[in-house]
Amino acid sequence: MTRCESVVGRDRVFREPADVVGYHDAFSVLSDDPHIPSAAVAPADIDELQAVVIAANEHKIPLWPISKGQNLGYGGAAPVLKGAVIIDLSRLNRILEVNEKYAYCEIEPGVGFFELHRYLEDNDIDLWMSVPGYAMGSVMGNALERGAGAQPYGDHAAQICGMEVMLANGEIVRTGTGAMSNSTTWHTEKFGFGPSWDGMFCQSNFGIVTKVGLWLMPAPEATMSAVLSFSEEKDLATAIDSLYPLKRQGLIEHNIAVLSYVGLASYTAPRSRWYRGEGVMPEEIGAKLRAELGLGWWTSFLTLYGYADVIEAQAKKITELLQDSIAPPTFNRWKKGDPMEFSGAGIPSARDIQMINWRGGRGGHLGFSPLLPADGRLAYEQYQRARDSFHEVGLDYYGAFAIRDRSIININEILYNRDDRAMCEGVQQLFPRLIKEAAAHGYSEYRTHIDYMDAVVDTLDHNQHAMARLNHAVKDTLDPQGILAPGKQGIWPARYRHKS
Amino acid sequence: MTRCESVVGRDRVFREPADVVGYHDAFSVLSDDPHIPSAAVAPADIDELQAVVIAANEHKIPLWPISKGQNLGYGGAAPVLKGAVIIDLSRLNRILEVNEKYAYCEIEPGVGFFELHRYLEDNDIDLWMSVPGYAMGSVMGNALERGAGAQPYGDHAAQICGMEVMLANGEIVRTGTGAMSNSTTWHTEKFGFGPSWDGMFCQSNFGIVTKVGLWLMPAPEATMSAVLSFSEEKDLATAIDSLYPLKRQGLIEHNIAVLSYVGLASYTAPRSRWYRGEGVMPEEIGAKLRAELGLGWWTSFLTLYGYADVIEAQAKKITELLQDSIAPPTFNRWKKGDPMEFSGAGIPSARDIQMINWRGGRGGHLGFSPLLPADGRLAYEQYQRARDSFHEVGLDYYGAFAIRDRSIININEILYNRDDRAMCEGVQQLFPRLIKEAAAHGYSEYRTHIDYMDAVVDTLDHNQHAMARLNHAVKDTLDPQGILAPGKQGIWPARYRHKS
Repeated sequence: MTRCESVVGRDRVFREPADVVGYHDAFSVLSDDPHIPSAAVAPADIDELQAVVIAANEHKIPLWPISKGQNLGYGGAAPVLKGAVIIDLSRLNRILEVNEKYAYCEIEPGVGFFELHRYLEDNDIDLWMSVPGYAMGSVMGNALERGAGAQPYGDHAAQICGMEVMLANGEIVRTGTGAMSNSTTWHTEKFGFGPSWDGMFCQSNFGIVTKVGLWLMPAPEATMSAVLSFSEEKDLATAIDSLYPLKRQGLIEHNIAVLSYVGLASYTAPRSRWYRGEGVMPEEIGAKLRAELGLGWWTSFLTLYGYADVIEAQAKKITELLQDSIAPPTFNRWKKGDPMEFSGAGIPSARDIQMINWRGGRGGHLGFSPLLPADGRLAYEQYQRARDSFHEVGLDYYGAFAIRDRSIININEILYNRDDRAMCEGVQQLFPRLIKEAAAHGYSEYRTHIDYMDAVVDTLDHNQHAMARLNHAVKDTLDPQGILAPGKQGIWPARYRHKS
Repeated sequence: MTRCESVVGRDRVFREPADVVGYHDAFSVLSDDPHIPSAAVAPADIDELQAVVIAANEHKIPLWPISKGQNLGYGGAAPVLKGAVIIDLSRLNRILEVNEKYAYCEIEPGVGFFELHRYLEDNDIDLWMSVPGYAMGSVMGNALERGAGAQPYGDHAAQICGMEVMLANGEIVRTGTGAMSNSTTWHTEKFGFGPSWDGMFCQSNFGIVTKVGLWLMPAPEATMSAVLSFSEEKDLATAIDSLYPLKRQGLIEHNIAVLSYVGLASYTAPRSRWYRGEGVMPEEIGAKLRAELGLGWWTSFLTLYGYADVIEAQAKKITELLQDSIAPPTFNRWKKGDPMEFSGAGIPSARDIQMINWRGGRGGHLGFSPLLPADGRLAYEQYQRARDSFHEVGLDYYGAFAIRDRSIININEILYNRDDRAMCEGVQQLFPRLIKEAAAHGYSEYRTHIDYMDAVVDTLDHNQHAMARLNHAVKDTLDPQGILAPGKQGIWPARYRHKS
């Protein structure tokens, strides 16, 4: 720590509990939180970071690198391993390049969605972003965790094109064509020569990503947007079976989310506005709420992006394809020059975090996110199981089913009051049950909270957990002292492996 | 070898020169070919393969696994390392699943494009393939080498979703959600939990891929196809600058290739039809040839795939966008039920291999494939340099510039007569020069011939070849005896590393 202080300056090493608390998981449901870091260090640049990593490697100090620490619902800034030192990369916040012709940016970990958006606006750059529902975090951090947005470039990890990574020994490697020092295609071409490493540094503890190329969306001439409303609970199956073909045939470019009403309501007000009782909000209250807010049980949003005449033709085809299952969508039209808020562009917002106020008190949320095939019946059955499990511990169900190319990411948000111990204990009962139930149906998770990384890896049991052995072999090679994010995604360095 | 024979049967171990010659590089320009394998073994199934790999690992026998060995232009079936034993996986040729709803197939290495195409036809499955110009090879093998087709799913490596891989110790691992033994999304979802491994087994010697999930294209209702012709050599810049925006804005889904006339002519007849002289074919002969075949200097092909009304609107927009730079394209229309040969679907063919007859004798071709940004001027300059280098050794220039999302893969096909020693020596002078010239401009290669893998890796010099060190670290961990494809993509196991 003294060496850290000499590298980054005393004012950038945080050891006081009052400072370190900012790196706790603010939404933890545990009364004795096992994810408390011992300190945090905020290097100013790559050189300082390198000096810190080399020192940690020498002294075998476990680190937990974060971009902006806004991985809310999955642990925030907090480390899996108690006592790990947070490496806060939020000061590495340069937008190194935005290339309009080739539609990419090169950024550091500390660049947030708001900063990148402002940069594009201020410089009149005709590129659009994809943003997650809660956009206070890091653009890079979100992509590395495979976060998603509602826009055509919404699969954020898929937009990664070329990284710079610091390994545990402080060595810097560039992936893709960036392996050539004078590369002119580092961020324009994902093909490199030889094995492709970009995916290996996503949801990973094999290195610290210090720069990333991310593709942005060339702005369209026009958009058309529609809200689809499904009035009954059981309509989830219809919604998915009607909308998946639009995605499959390329009529809709973005992932199509189907959201339950509790989530949309939670963005507007806490539950107490409609219901002050204990336990699950009764269905008759839900019906009243939906009527008041003009919501269906499920809601979905479609946006077409492109040339005006082309998207008109697409909209007509979509209306035709949906006519037997869904009321005709009403499209709102936007064209270049109209107010951006109606465009369907990704505009950063912190709106969605209001969901944590649903149950009152110091709120929190926890994401349970299994992957399913894109099938209405399977989704509805998974929904029913999850709903029943939520209800059993007195929690209202909130979930979104995001239809992707051939599958669904089902994000269930568990909303709770951290001041209600019984509720927090309910969450702790609920979560492992959800993992187990999903695994019994062949559904693994795409992402999980730091409490449950080992539990999820336990479900990845093909050939006696061959994938875990493979990851561990690489971990031991690239990080023999085990300093980088021990336990992240269930990957433990050799010296901590008994913990898993 | 005796142990191999006891595993796979004596008739599936090939040691006689007359048998092994089938695994040589049939297009080698070297008089003393350093890539001669010592033997070949053709296991019948995964169990036999596993027994062979375990035996090789025990006895430190270098292996060179191939799918169907049709990596023509890049070495065919031949190993980098002289004396390596070919593991011929062409008998592992099961189509394990084709899923129409989720538009994927699960296949083994020995499944060829023709076999998969026939399977789709015979079973009336409404999915289309993407095929390379020469389609005698393996569907999986082509994807693993990052081969390309002219169709919307033409980036074959990008269609990979979930692999089964045998490691050097014989252990079997499944990637993505396949790490869960009862996974229902192995081939529908690329997101797994933790680091993503699929890219690591492309252009790689970290394992032997034994099964792969590949996404196929849901058949469209209609297509519209146009041929664009550019009459002057210098039109390459215009072609690229006019066509890249169509790709960038999503109007064209497939990669847009711009091909020089020698290639298209070579598919129809050898050069002797037009010219019987030595050295480079004179431009006046080229002009005559183009007039006779109705070709431009450069030719490009556009196809729109989708719903009839939508692609009509796209075609109209494309015509409008091109009007200032290119003569209006004439679109041919195809709709479901019309003869498939006019559809723009990927239909396997061996046509392109006729290019090897261009110079007469026992022909050959060698691919030089740098990556450039999608810019007309840069492409034209790269073309000029390559053309001059071709001409200097008496070879006609043939190249294609495939416009991708933000970059270009420039595939230069060196066509020669293997019976002409002087010409073969010219090729050997030419190739290193092309690599060097491209590298000087920051262009790395996406793929290369077995002769030049080390030379290409030499150009990947960022941070004193940090990427090579990273690959070697992983190689030594996953394959400590160094048995899997030593030298592939310049990745040498420790015991051979002095060779690089």
